[in-house]
Amino acid sequence: MTVSSLLKNHVRYAPYLSKVVNPQELLPLFKDGQYIGWSGFTGVGAPKVIPQMLADHVEQNELQGKMKFNLFVGASAGPEESRWAELDMIARRAPHQVGKPIARAINEGRIQFFDKHLSMFPQDLTYGFYTKDRTDGKILDYTIIEATAIKEDGSIVPGPSVGGSPEFISVSDKVIIEVNTATPSFEGIHDIDMPLNPPFRQPYPYTRVDEKCGVHSIPVDPERVIALVESTTRDKVPPNTPSDDMSRAIASHLVEFLENEVRHGRLPENLHPLQSGIGNIANAVIEGLTDSSFKHLTVWTEVLQDSFLDLFENGSLDYATATSIRLTEAGFERFFDNWDTFSKKLCLRSQVVSNNPEMIRRLGVIAMNTPVEVDIYAHANSTNVSGSRMLNGLGGSADFLRNAKLSIMHAPSARPTKKDPTGISTIVPMASHVDQTEHDLDVIVTDQGLADVRGMSPRERAREIIKNCAHPDYQPILMDYLEKSEFYARKNKCLHEPHMLKHAHKFHVNLAEKGTMKVDSWD
Amino acid sequence: MTVSSLLKNHVRYAPYLSKVVNPQELLPLFKDGQYIGWSGFTGVGAPKVIPQMLADHVEQNELQGKMKFNLFVGASAGPEESRWAELDMIARRAPHQVGKPIARAINEGRIQFFDKHLSMFPQDLTYGFYTKDRTDGKILDYTIIEATAIKEDGSIVPGPSVGGSPEFISVSDKVIIEVNTATPSFEGIHDIDMPLNPPFRQPYPYTRVDEKCGVHSIPVDPERVIALVESTTRDKVPPNTPSDDMSRAIASHLVEFLENEVRHGRLPENLHPLQSGIGNIANAVIEGLTDSSFKHLTVWTEVLQDSFLDLFENGSLDYATATSIRLTEAGFERFFDNWDTFSKKLCLRSQVVSNNPEMIRRLGVIAMNTPVEVDIYAHANSTNVSGSRMLNGLGGSADFLRNAKLSIMHAPSARPTKKDPTGISTIVPMASHVDQTEHDLDVIVTDQGLADVRGMSPRERAREIIKNCAHPDYQPILMDYLEKSEFYARKNKCLHEPHMLKHAHKFHVNLAEKGTMKVDSWD
Repeated sequence: MTVSSLLKNHVRYAPYLSKVVNPQELLPLFKDGQYIGWSGFTGVGAPKVIPQMLADHVEQNELQGKMKFNLFVGASAGPEESRWAELDMIARRAPHQVGKPIARAINEGRIQFFDKHLSMFPQDLTYGFYTKDRTDGKILDYTIIEATAIKEDGSIVPGPSVGGSPEFISVSDKVIIEVNTATPSFEGIHDIDMPLNPPFRQPYPYTRVDEKCGVHSIPVDPERVIALVESTTRDKVPPNTPSDDMSRAIASHLVEFLENEVRHGRLPENLHPLQSGIGNIANAVIEGLTDSSFKHLTVWTEVLQDSFLDLFENGSLDYATATSIRLTEAGFERFFDNWDTFSKKLCLRSQVVSNNPEMIRRLGVIAMNTPVEVDIYAHANSTNVSGSRMLNGLGGSADFLRNAKLSIMHAPSARPTKKDPTGISTIVPMASHVDQTEHDLDVIVTDQGLADVRGMSPRERAREIIKNCAHPDYQPILMDYLEKSEFYARKNKCLHEPHMLKHAHKFHVNLAEKGTMKVDSWD
Repeated sequence: MTVSSLLKNHVRYAPYLSKVVNPQELLPLFKDGQYIGWSGFTGVGAPKVIPQMLADHVEQNELQGKMKFNLFVGASAGPEESRWAELDMIARRAPHQVGKPIARAINEGRIQFFDKHLSMFPQDLTYGFYTKDRTDGKILDYTIIEATAIKEDGSIVPGPSVGGSPEFISVSDKVIIEVNTATPSFEGIHDIDMPLNPPFRQPYPYTRVDEKCGVHSIPVDPERVIALVESTTRDKVPPNTPSDDMSRAIASHLVEFLENEVRHGRLPENLHPLQSGIGNIANAVIEGLTDSSFKHLTVWTEVLQDSFLDLFENGSLDYATATSIRLTEAGFERFFDNWDTFSKKLCLRSQVVSNNPEMIRRLGVIAMNTPVEVDIYAHANSTNVSGSRMLNGLGGSADFLRNAKLSIMHAPSARPTKKDPTGISTIVPMASHVDQTEHDLDVIVTDQGLADVRGMSPRERAREIIKNCAHPDYQPILMDYLEKSEFYARKNKCLHEPHMLKHAHKFHVNLAEKGTMKVDSWD
């Protein structure tokens, strides 16, 4: 097959050029029931050509539900994954997903989905835990990885995400590389610790966010690379939701809190490394920091978004490291236009390292994430609406919130339903699903205010959270729940964390039946 | 005051001998509302003389409820703590407790108790998180620490536990030392990493359980040591509950599972370092390992019990490290009679290190703990009976279960109530309190059998757990709950983790009302 000169520019290991194929030629390799790893994390750096080719094949031949794969991706992939979900091509999926088509397939029972902490998933995969029932002893049949360059030794330079690719490749029978020639090479931005399992694992030596001790590309045995294809499409990330009054109110409470921590000597003036999630509140918080007086900030997180570019450009941010840089098209333009600047202040690591408790705890990271709901005793639901319905995967929320020096969750105090503009309260009597426990969270913040629950007993926490965070429409209802629960608990001598189990989920039941969480009474 | 020759033998730093006092002399130092740290962990190594003196004072002067302290101990202390609880001398308590009097005081609302991961509690205390409302800027007013020797430099050699003492001392305004002359010195058995907070924290360098890189006693500024008292009472640990058919059945399932993991190459022949909790099941598991063919085992845990001495003596166990060695009186006799052997194979570290995610994950620890209950989707309750009533603190369960290579929970499938010999099911539809999430557990084992849920979706997990772990009396009830929940979830497109929130805690409500979890129907 003729190899484009562009492709030749990206591939510096000649033997691979003889492996360049037309994607169609790879079709016979793929069979129902195989175990496949994809590169990609939070919608960037995933393979595009082979997944689309397979999706076209399934669609054209009406093979929906007849050609299903066990699909493992570092975190969420991109639109190709959504198309696989729509075409019923995913039998099993882990560890994280985002997007309506895939959530729908999970909630319809068409995908067996399991969620695992992003720092653990790739390691557990290499242990053989997720493929223990395979009789052939293999772990992954194929890893399909997007590269932005191939180095002289055949090693792979990933694109805007590292994710679980190093681990996937280490346990993959065969590897297929999609070389993306539509995007400049990301060479020089990665620092990768290759997996080493117990009892041989060593300390991660990093004591600062900007230290690099790993390799700059992913080594692979060239014998296992069976094909290269050229990919000519860039990542497409939807535009960020702009901040609004609600998210700016949250950001303002949070910045005030951080300033107060500095004043009392519990944080240094440049804070500690920040972790921030995805979404409009996260963006507003970063905007809030951009406008604040904090200088020489650093970031240790799992995903960087456009808002961080502003922090760099106004001089507040010294260095940022993550496993993925998820920029919009405009963001990537800006990033490449200033490559020399940004590439010196940025480092992408594997998700096992970016999300590792070892680093998060050592560095004293400040973690900020958005939950579905938080209960009065500070348990949080990050994944399942009303206990059952998968919204988004767990992601790295628990990696960070469990290990951070400061564990912060932020959310609007109320959300609308069709029937009631404040029909859903973020603060509930009992979380309908628990992903973060009461032992993990330090601070809860909504547009109403901030609850600092450090060192508080459950009942103290409940009052602090209801008073400071709950929407006024729900404050009396929640206080009534708390006081009635305490009344019964006093009689029954169980006053540590009083609940009325019969009514603990009445907010959610009421929502399902009447379209609002505003319950009339607790009887 | 005259100093006994025994005390002189234990104290090799002469200036302290002039600080030896009669405990009564210290009474005026103690005031209602102070913040006090005690040494001790799991009932050993706690101070005895001063706490008893204060308890006597309160009792004799009828000061119950009028002289209350904010009390911080590494984990549970001992009988002195129970007495303080009975005399209403504890205003606030963290991070862990065991024992009826203290649980009663918490459940009656007399103690504000909060629970934190044992690896985090001492660090968060040093951050000032738990004393942020103090206006004088202090953290602890006094730390009362039991020593078994004082070295030439005035540093403190602890006894059978290290716990949080290094951190307590580092943030304590003044220090009082109880030198225990009834027990031989434990000098040589400790390896202590002194606290260093972000951004200065370094990697813990340990890559094997037997590595030592710390100091062998706790350094203290002698100026801050205001008094020494002699303590002449040994620790008193109640006898261990012997194994029975139930716990032996659990142990046998577990040993078989571990053997199978070795056969399939997912564990080496000598396993990985073991962590084991307290109680008769934990003891039965260690007995099971003693009788098995495993050799060259190692242990990385938080507390060692008598059963480990057997493992050492039959040659199966090469090395063990923990933060506490909680032996019965007979166990301590045996330990000291063979000091030369045991002290070479044992090391006590601070709880920040013994329970640190960094080490647990690096070493690939196998963690085994007992829950109150586990739900069909593999969330576990470790602390609160029926959601509200504090049983025991969280301890290190979540430190280990979140980070271990294999996270195992073991419990009897059913427990008796007054009305029904199998009135309480360990497997419930929805945990009434969640301390370990579905993202944390790999294996659940009861006397009925073992559920290996690695890589399973929630609905697959539910069937595996009900089939293999639930007591036969509850299997049809739980399957009925699952199937009815799936029926509604199918209609409402929320099939990821189906629940009927209205009835999710009906097991517990039924137990409260009728003395058994056996519900008649799910309507």
